[in-house]
Amino acid sequence: MTKERIIIGIDPGTRLMGYGVIRTNGARMETLALGVVRMSSIQDHYRRMSHILEKMYELLDEFHPDCMAIEAPFYSKNVQSMLKLGRAQGVAIAAALSRNVPVCEYAPRKIKMAVTGRGAASKEQVAVMLKQMLHFSEEPESLDATDALAVAVCHANQLILPQKTAPAGSWKAFVSKNPQRIVRK
Amino acid sequence: MTKERIIIGIDPGTRLMGYGVIRTNGARMETLALGVVRMSSIQDHYRRMSHILEKMYELLDEFHPDCMAIEAPFYSKNVQSMLKLGRAQGVAIAAALSRNVPVCEYAPRKIKMAVTGRGAASKEQVAVMLKQMLHFSEEPESLDATDALAVAVCHANQLILPQKTAPAGSWKAFVSKNPQRIVRK
Repeated sequence: MTKERIIIGIDPGTRLMGYGVIRTNGARMETLALGVVRMSSIQDHYRRMSHILEKMYELLDEFHPDCMAIEAPFYSKNVQSMLKLGRAQGVAIAAALSRNVPVCEYAPRKIKMAVTGRGAASKEQVAVMLKQMLHFSEEPESLDATDALAVAVCHANQLILPQKTAPAGSWKAFVSKNPQRIVRK
Repeated sequence: MTKERIIIGIDPGTRLMGYGVIRTNGARMETLALGVVRMSSIQDHYRRMSHILEKMYELLDEFHPDCMAIEAPFYSKNVQSMLKLGRAQGVAIAAALSRNVPVCEYAPRKIKMAVTGRGAASKEQVAVMLKQMLHFSEEPESLDATDALAVAVCHANQLILPQKTAPAGSWKAFVSKNPQRIVRK
């Protein structure tokens, strides 16, 4: 038995923040929002952070998601850009936590695998696959938007996967079903 | 003429967050709060972020600072730790922005210079100097707390420094005093 859930996927950066919101119920999914927030014209670093925060509150208050999913970042060699990326992510995470929305993250490979079945798929391949899965009527604004949507889809897939449990006849299953039978010294 | 201001200095990390709050009026300063938030016992990364956020809101709502000052980070070689540091900073920044508190940052060298007069001073030297300047009655909990206080003191010093203005007899000063005399074609 599954439940309807709203998931927001976020791809936060300091120049662009991609977002994708889906409604999911078991294997059924539909896109509620898809877009990017552009910040290249804003010079001040803290104004950019403010802009991310405002947009995040706007999205969270409009869609009331059950979860926010973000990409566990790929580590670049540029330390300074990693710090800026970390700050942008921190701001988006803080917005979600302020609204009591739990946050979960997925490795880039896992996200690509969830959407295309291939961990090494390109951004374009991910976008094409998402268009088919979610029946977009419009062309997405940028690949940052589809990247964000992909994280949301990855989380939706996790929800319907059967939980790992011990096989019925195993010792572990027996112990968990019969805790009173365990003798502790 | 100076004005009374409250400044909060923050040294956010993922294991410890130092904070120091001062009230300043011209060259007079007093410590309102000084401490650290410990997160080593919290395993989950997002619970740590939540903890930073809660503590930040608590401090902001108790002291209503006019500004939050943070250290512009020293770039370490470890990319992964930079991203985590960035996230912790991003969360603290988001809390301040959510409460409409402006954020400013200072380079480590500038902070040490403001407190001790030496850009290469050690953390211990910074702590000793702060104890003299601000007449602590208690021993600070950790050097992360005094580091945070040092950023607040650095910002307070900036406020009383004379603003850079054009010399009285200069062309720039004349233009700014007599805008009606400028002929625009």
